[in-house]
Amino acid sequence: MLTRFAVAPSGFKESLSAQAAAHAIAAGVRRVVPHAEVDLIPLVDGGEGTARALASATGGRLVALPATGPLGETVGTHFALLGSGSSGSSSSGCNSNSNSGSGSGSVDTAVVEMAAVAGLSLVPHSLRDPGATTTYGVGELIRAALDKGVQRVLVGCGDSGTSDGGAGALQALGARLLDMDGFELPFGGRELSRLSRIDATGLDPRLSEVELLVACNPYNVLCGERGVARVFGPQKGATPAQVEELSAGLENWAYVLTRDLGVTGTDLYGGPGTGASGGLGAGLAALGARLLPRFDVLLDHLDLDARLARADLVLTAEGALDHQTPRGKVPAEVARRAKLHGRPVLALAGTLGEGAHEVPGVDACTAILPAPMALAEALVRGSEFLTDATERALRMILLGARLPVQAAAVRAAAVPAAAPAAEVSGTQRPSSVR
Amino acid sequence: MLTRFAVAPSGFKESLSAQAAAHAIAAGVRRVVPHAEVDLIPLVDGGEGTARALASATGGRLVALPATGPLGETVGTHFALLGSGSSGSSSSGCNSNSNSGSGSGSVDTAVVEMAAVAGLSLVPHSLRDPGATTTYGVGELIRAALDKGVQRVLVGCGDSGTSDGGAGALQALGARLLDMDGFELPFGGRELSRLSRIDATGLDPRLSEVELLVACNPYNVLCGERGVARVFGPQKGATPAQVEELSAGLENWAYVLTRDLGVTGTDLYGGPGTGASGGLGAGLAALGARLLPRFDVLLDHLDLDARLARADLVLTAEGALDHQTPRGKVPAEVARRAKLHGRPVLALAGTLGEGAHEVPGVDACTAILPAPMALAEALVRGSEFLTDATERALRMILLGARLPVQAAAVRAAAVPAAAPAAEVSGTQRPSSVR
Repeated sequence: MLTRFAVAPSGFKESLSAQAAAHAIAAGVRRVVPHAEVDLIPLVDGGEGTARALASATGGRLVALPATGPLGETVGTHFALLGSGSSGSSSSGCNSNSNSGSGSGSVDTAVVEMAAVAGLSLVPHSLRDPGATTTYGVGELIRAALDKGVQRVLVGCGDSGTSDGGAGALQALGARLLDMDGFELPFGGRELSRLSRIDATGLDPRLSEVELLVACNPYNVLCGERGVARVFGPQKGATPAQVEELSAGLENWAYVLTRDLGVTGTDLYGGPGTGASGGLGAGLAALGARLLPRFDVLLDHLDLDARLARADLVLTAEGALDHQTPRGKVPAEVARRAKLHGRPVLALAGTLGEGAHEVPGVDACTAILPAPMALAEALVRGSEFLTDATERALRMILLGARLPVQAAAVRAAAVPAAAPAAEVSGTQRPSSVR
Repeated sequence: MLTRFAVAPSGFKESLSAQAAAHAIAAGVRRVVPHAEVDLIPLVDGGEGTARALASATGGRLVALPATGPLGETVGTHFALLGSGSSGSSSSGCNSNSNSGSGSGSVDTAVVEMAAVAGLSLVPHSLRDPGATTTYGVGELIRAALDKGVQRVLVGCGDSGTSDGGAGALQALGARLLDMDGFELPFGGRELSRLSRIDATGLDPRLSEVELLVACNPYNVLCGERGVARVFGPQKGATPAQVEELSAGLENWAYVLTRDLGVTGTDLYGGPGTGASGGLGAGLAALGARLLPRFDVLLDHLDLDARLARADLVLTAEGALDHQTPRGKVPAEVARRAKLHGRPVLALAGTLGEGAHEVPGVDACTAILPAPMALAEALVRGSEFLTDATERALRMILLGARLPVQAAAVRAAAVPAAAPAAEVSGTQRPSSVR
């Protein structure tokens, strides 16, 4: 009745990776249903951990290399070469879905995770200046992927520490960004207001021969009231004055890109996903990349739909559940897909905010904290709390699952001079006792 | 199937009265089951609000009067005269159970709530000195109740601000507590070490004509390792040195009481409930009072068992759920009684501590906090959080209640070339499809 569980969480920012969250939830499930068949599906959203998770899920591999970090320093990073075993095992066992249909022969697809070379976590708190950071390393990773002869490069956005519109990535790929005196611009979004023209003659010619895909949140746009500098700048450390400076720079960036790269058919200012990862979406779109809703392009590698369809109950989770959740967050996407197969969905969260009770497709939600405490303690004890909260939630669900039978049995017993018990079958309701 | 709810919470200390908690839970229930029949049973444990709640539940009344507060000052206080309508309406409506079988004619029972005249909340934080406070007002209230001609006085313990072993109450009732020089002791537990003998000749003679009952937590004892000064002294503001001073005083108090009042058959040092309300239990026991487990003596006035038996689901709640809960706390008692009738029990709590998942009779529990926050904010927003958490819990329970049907339906649909659907009845499981 309740034996097959699909555990499909996001990570909990600054507390748990998606993988750790999945394990914590599974532990809670097994406390209540010891012989549960738990299918662990830690989800990726394009941000931190995406390359590693997709390599693991497809039996591919990671390629390690040095590249330029967000502050211009050299960092150790990696990209993924996906395997051909695009997951989807029908195993309902207890392990993470890491099929090893090893990627022999030619490799089709590389995954470049921008956070692995230009992520916010690579920028120490004391050095957070979104006007200065660069996506140069992202361009280097794309070049390195092209060196492997792949036919497709999938760039994962999310958790970025940059606001340069992808300018650095274009520089690494051979474009020259020039000011009105013909000098090249240094790194950083704050320079973009001074951009006069782009010399694209040096762009890597292989870019026109591969499929370049960007997995992004389509709600993120480059310019305007909901532009990326205004929405995400402050959390990357921008002051109000910097937000305006960055916004103006990105607007100029969109203008010059459109003009000098001859962009047609794509609105770099306000098109869906153009604001992804500090505007990296716009920069890559100008190179001909297709900006795709991240879950559409990422989750098929995990065979998500088929795995959700097999579950009696779907558990998802994220650090916060609130009015933002339906705007492209993991629990909303899991719930949407689960509902296509009529599966019930429970969501767990560290914080329930405004709107948490109204996420479409989520049948029930719960917060994981057991007591009043500071955020810092909650972050450190995330795994323990998530396991305990899962146990409590399952107990409530099982309480409910037993209810109709209990109530029917008790009331049937209470009916005076009813028909012989033998005629009362199974789980029928008292009202059907004739 | 899930329409009748018994809502039987305790209060949440420093946040919600039991009444307020019951209303908050009911609001959450109705968000999910709009036409629910909700029976509000705010529970009393002898402490704050007990007199008022029992007067209301029985159609009795409160008698207001001035008396001596814990610091020796005069305070406005009250005791209850219970009505004859000892509750137990079979109404399954939405209102609090306040039958008005008004207490006409002779009144049997008075309820003296010690917290109403000697409670901790009557002692400002800056003046907390458990060596100085007195239960004198409790004795005054008992006298005032005797003036009403009642046959029974029920003293509710809990939430006390005193540690005088009930010495003050005995003084108010006419006993003289004398030091070795024959002088009367001043107020306060710290004086009890100096007690030399008790002159009981002036005790109110009516005490021997009425039934004196004390509703207390039987786990509270006067002396020894788990004695009241050691367990509760610190939270009343006692320093470690004071704890030892109070412990020694209470031991002398038990010795002199036993000797001078000729107490036999009752162990004033370690008998169940002797430590209730800073030892008030022991003092009253020396006068012949019977110390009774608080729920046995209090909850019958609320007709609790019959009301729990009628519910499809029992919801209880307390500020904290932990290893202390089974030691005489409201949720444990509600769960115990609910289980006598086979009713499922959900417990909500502001804080889940060690042992929260193992309270006997509690099928499922949940914490009410939606996010990390300080205790102070949690206390202020208790009602809102309790309502929201109830809504979430009910959604989980309803998710569970729909599960078997859902799973059966989906699997039946998936059975290849199964028997014609017409033969599959009601909510039967797939396994019973022949």
